[in-house]
Amino acid sequence: MMQSLQQKASEWSGVQIADAFAIDKDQTNLFQKLGLQAFINLSTNFYNRVYDDEEEWFRSIFANSEKEKAIQNQYEFFIQRMGGPPLYSQRRGHPALIARHRPFRVTHEAAERWIHHMQQALDTTSDIDDDSKIKMMNFFRHTAYFVVAGVELKDKNQHPCKDAPGKDHACKNF
Amino acid sequence: MMQSLQQKASEWSGVQIADAFAIDKDQTNLFQKLGLQAFINLSTNFYNRVYDDEEEWFRSIFANSEKEKAIQNQYEFFIQRMGGPPLYSQRRGHPALIARHRPFRVTHEAAERWIHHMQQALDTTSDIDDDSKIKMMNFFRHTAYFVVAGVELKDKNQHPCKDAPGKDHACKNF
Repeated sequence: MMQSLQQKASEWSGVQIADAFAIDKDQTNLFQKLGLQAFINLSTNFYNRVYDDEEEWFRSIFANSEKEKAIQNQYEFFIQRMGGPPLYSQRRGHPALIARHRPFRVTHEAAERWIHHMQQALDTTSDIDDDSKIKMMNFFRHTAYFVVAGVELKDKNQHPCKDAPGKDHACKNF
Repeated sequence: MMQSLQQKASEWSGVQIADAFAIDKDQTNLFQKLGLQAFINLSTNFYNRVYDDEEEWFRSIFANSEKEKAIQNQYEFFIQRMGGPPLYSQRRGHPALIARHRPFRVTHEAAERWIHHMQQALDTTSDIDDDSKIKMMNFFRHTAYFVVAGVELKDKNQHPCKDAPGKDHACKNF
């Protein structure tokens, strides 16, 4: 049976879906708690690491994007997703997380490297408290593998609704 | 130059992005304003029309999905997107609007038919006020064509970052 995207994301990331979306729990509004500047600092910290990565294969994924644009896209998405104003959608439309990552080689290794830099960036962004860091990291880790799972569906040309035996069942679970 | 997804969506739908995302404006929280039952009523109304559509080509798009599941997926997404609790993500993960529509033939004609039924459903859901209906319909119309634009990228195998001349520029705008 075809696994759903978020089942795959949980299995690969080791983060259960309830923990991944603890950023949405009642009383949690990370944008109100942390403020705009913390998100700008985090994304700047993150992309400084990415664009300086000693691993050329990872750095090259971002070679066609301007760093300043990458930073803005990221913090606007995080702010919108974590309780703040919909800055991202007002400028670029729906996040469409999987579709917008289709141009890139989003492998398991790339997800791990992304997570590595984000963990470092979180650890060195002083205006984010420890409880928020844990919630955010669970969201990031799960989301990274959610994107891997979504992009893999294309790469393998293995869409559940095409050719597969038991396709009706698979389609319902996608 | 490659148009961005939301530029295409605006052109095809006739809805500017600021109007499409007026559901997010300050002071607008459609979930708080309308309540859970209005969203359930709307999606039930909508899918009753879809599953009874006299147009077999459109009805058949949904033939592999159970109506009750389709209704729940839709109202949970709408509630989450319009200011309510993240029911959809807690159950299914990120909306991933384009990726989750990839199995279906999301043509311009299908978008128009979807919009037609949604307009009828909105018009006959009495617990939604006129101002909210306008905001919601702009969001729905723009989003329908956003999905068409995203799915077309795959269908034509025309991803901006593959093969195209001027690909660097295109990738930045995707």
